[in-house]
Amino acid sequence: MVDIAPLLERELGADKVIQRGDERLDDYGHDENPIPQQFLPDCAVLATTADEVAAVLRLCAEHGVPVTPRGAGSGLCGGCLPIAGGVVLSTEKMKRILEIDPDDLVAVVEPGVITGELQSAVEEQGMFYPPDPASLEYCSIGGNAATNAGGPRAFKYGVTREYVLGLDVALMGGERLRVGRRTSKGVTGYDLVAGFVGSEGTFGVITELTLKLLPRPQAASTVLAVFADTQAAGTCISALLRSGLRPRALEIADKSSIDHIRPKSRYRFPENAGAIVLIEVDGDPDEMGGQMERIGMACDERGALDVLAAQDAAERRALWEARRLISSSLKEAHRIKINEDVCVPRGAIVEMLRRCDQLAAKSGVQITVFGHAGDGNLHVNLLSDADPADPAVTGHLYEVTRELFAHTIALRGTLSGEHGIGLSKRDFMSMEQSEQVLEWQRKWKRMWDPRELLNPGKVLPPSTRRCSE
Amino acid sequence: MVDIAPLLERELGADKVIQRGDERLDDYGHDENPIPQQFLPDCAVLATTADEVAAVLRLCAEHGVPVTPRGAGSGLCGGCLPIAGGVVLSTEKMKRILEIDPDDLVAVVEPGVITGELQSAVEEQGMFYPPDPASLEYCSIGGNAATNAGGPRAFKYGVTREYVLGLDVALMGGERLRVGRRTSKGVTGYDLVAGFVGSEGTFGVITELTLKLLPRPQAASTVLAVFADTQAAGTCISALLRSGLRPRALEIADKSSIDHIRPKSRYRFPENAGAIVLIEVDGDPDEMGGQMERIGMACDERGALDVLAAQDAAERRALWEARRLISSSLKEAHRIKINEDVCVPRGAIVEMLRRCDQLAAKSGVQITVFGHAGDGNLHVNLLSDADPADPAVTGHLYEVTRELFAHTIALRGTLSGEHGIGLSKRDFMSMEQSEQVLEWQRKWKRMWDPRELLNPGKVLPPSTRRCSE
Repeated sequence: MVDIAPLLERELGADKVIQRGDERLDDYGHDENPIPQQFLPDCAVLATTADEVAAVLRLCAEHGVPVTPRGAGSGLCGGCLPIAGGVVLSTEKMKRILEIDPDDLVAVVEPGVITGELQSAVEEQGMFYPPDPASLEYCSIGGNAATNAGGPRAFKYGVTREYVLGLDVALMGGERLRVGRRTSKGVTGYDLVAGFVGSEGTFGVITELTLKLLPRPQAASTVLAVFADTQAAGTCISALLRSGLRPRALEIADKSSIDHIRPKSRYRFPENAGAIVLIEVDGDPDEMGGQMERIGMACDERGALDVLAAQDAAERRALWEARRLISSSLKEAHRIKINEDVCVPRGAIVEMLRRCDQLAAKSGVQITVFGHAGDGNLHVNLLSDADPADPAVTGHLYEVTRELFAHTIALRGTLSGEHGIGLSKRDFMSMEQSEQVLEWQRKWKRMWDPRELLNPGKVLPPSTRRCSE
Repeated sequence: MVDIAPLLERELGADKVIQRGDERLDDYGHDENPIPQQFLPDCAVLATTADEVAAVLRLCAEHGVPVTPRGAGSGLCGGCLPIAGGVVLSTEKMKRILEIDPDDLVAVVEPGVITGELQSAVEEQGMFYPPDPASLEYCSIGGNAATNAGGPRAFKYGVTREYVLGLDVALMGGERLRVGRRTSKGVTGYDLVAGFVGSEGTFGVITELTLKLLPRPQAASTVLAVFADTQAAGTCISALLRSGLRPRALEIADKSSIDHIRPKSRYRFPENAGAIVLIEVDGDPDEMGGQMERIGMACDERGALDVLAAQDAAERRALWEARRLISSSLKEAHRIKINEDVCVPRGAIVEMLRRCDQLAAKSGVQITVFGHAGDGNLHVNLLSDADPADPAVTGHLYEVTRELFAHTIALRGTLSGEHGIGLSKRDFMSMEQSEQVLEWQRKWKRMWDPRELLNPGKVLPPSTRRCSE
């Protein structure tokens, strides 16, 4: 492989290229996934314009060098790891909010804008960008689009895909392409945008996004209900939904989650707390009181041990604290935390939680589950205090993960609700999808990138057909 | 071309094939578009199972015979017309609702199910399927997915795409493929479903759909406000949205619409009525009163000439009557009615209405506009009482249509918000999309159907590149 770094330096200037020997390069060899391995690229490029992105893709294509696009590096599945070497192409410096239009209800942004910063900017102007991945304070909007990120509010407002109206992308080889539109509806030709959203940087590199905004809801209120077990929590959730309630978030956490946050939380959980449900509604300020009352009564009727309600922003944050503390508490308490985000049909949540308990008992691995109950999207955390470098340990966790996926698929679920496939779930894909379905996806990938130089080795497992040829 | 009808009869049985000479075949040569031409196919197949659909696609591929899929034939753009001859493959007999699951909030249906019948069936069980194209009483759900149909409720609930979780499709050649999932979220691999939705039957034939349902809102209420002109109506709409209101429908109609429905409507419109706005909210019954009051006050403040409000279902239907009468009144009153459904950024609606008035004055063609103001999606009707068979008349209307599209694109809009491109807008595509963007769509089409036998000649104009080769 040609030494690409000097060529990139000549084209873009030395300040845009991080070379081998520069310790900053280490940052581009990992993301937030728990794979202990580091994959060091030959160099990293910090592009500042779409032209620079295109130039990298042109030069690398000319020289057959793989390119791995990277947003904020907050992914959990290794999707931005340069496993084939070559160049990491980072959009982290492309951080301009180009336009926020309150009449059109549209924002136009560069891919490196931090999601939470975009949300604040549009909320200041009375608008609302709903998708709220847990990482919103440090993830970038380009990465959100590349992975089709979700979050608690997806239950009412949908995932990132619903908010991406148009995209500027650069393709391997350097071609630039503008797809989609500025209007909130549109069926003019095929939906090229939908292909790029969620393709994890394997089709092209996003250089600009046109996003749909909503009018900002004037008020929100939050209810935290504590139950004796997940069965009771699940029954309450079903009852709330059957009553026609459409909360913007409907979160669940199990006993192990509660036990992890108990020491840190300002709220004194009842001793027999076995599950929590967090419900958030939004809308007109005048409606909040009535809605909270109805939710509270429904929780009481279904045997809640305690019900807390808040309408004021600070109090609401305090209720969310319990939910937000879970992930960091697990991480602090254990040497290994593998967070899978399986998604099952909504009616199968309680059964999935039961199977997770069984799997924990059988395997000896501690399993903590919390997540987006309204969407059936559960964060199943495999926890261990063993040595992460011990192959026997990682091998065992791999087998438990496989069993978790087998249960998910048996309940007609899917491997990932919002994190994506990346590298870490790639080789489990064939548990869910037939070789036929995978092969059509490979064809689609080759349509955009026939030489498979862009983010190679991600999402799709290698073809079994090709191996036998 | 081989005589395919006898081969299909032998494979499927005589009752499934409508041959030349059978007057029922005439029905398969047109849809609801105003193109006066009829395109008679060699035969039509009324498939009853996915296996039969696949068999037709296999046999026709073997013999190089074009196949044009057809749902209920309610399309407005000629998308189901067999312009290259061959076989029309109708799914109208595949009408089974296979499953409605209140726990998973999912319905599984065959493509021929009438959209309104599906809505009734799920509403009886306390659930809700939001997409509501105007044709819902006679259009089919397979056609809705193929065209990514919208409707008034799209403003709050999104279009058909947001509700299609999984699809069974049959491809040209007879391959059957199952894509997507049953869960409400999922990012496992590329979004193959999104490609089929809106591709107007050019990628594959949908044989089964897994649809997302919502809990049914417990109540809805409707406000009809009358304004002196569209400028005042537009200002009121902007004010309502800035207040954070999120109605499920936000419709507008111009003076010409009012004048057409005035003689038929039970409501006596004020003499100086120049625009109507229809606003519908849904949610908790206890909230309806307050919401209607706030909307009514906002309309009053913005100079509404009259405001009517209804919460009871029969009264709400009466308010919708005004909106629903428009299209049929126009059709009855004029020999020619060309309904374009351009979509502009929401902030450009009033300007678009102004340009339509100007275009009418300049061209001498009567233009009536109504539509989904919340989405910027306007139904612009070109009306004429001249002879539709006179080429001078149709030529003039074609030029006015072209000018309409030019204004739409100048305002950063798109040719179609919900009807699709089909045949009638195909040759306008290059006004909006570059040859580069069209060429990528052609590649995508050829990925699924390399010989271009499936619904040939639709959506994409012929390549200018290929012509010069």
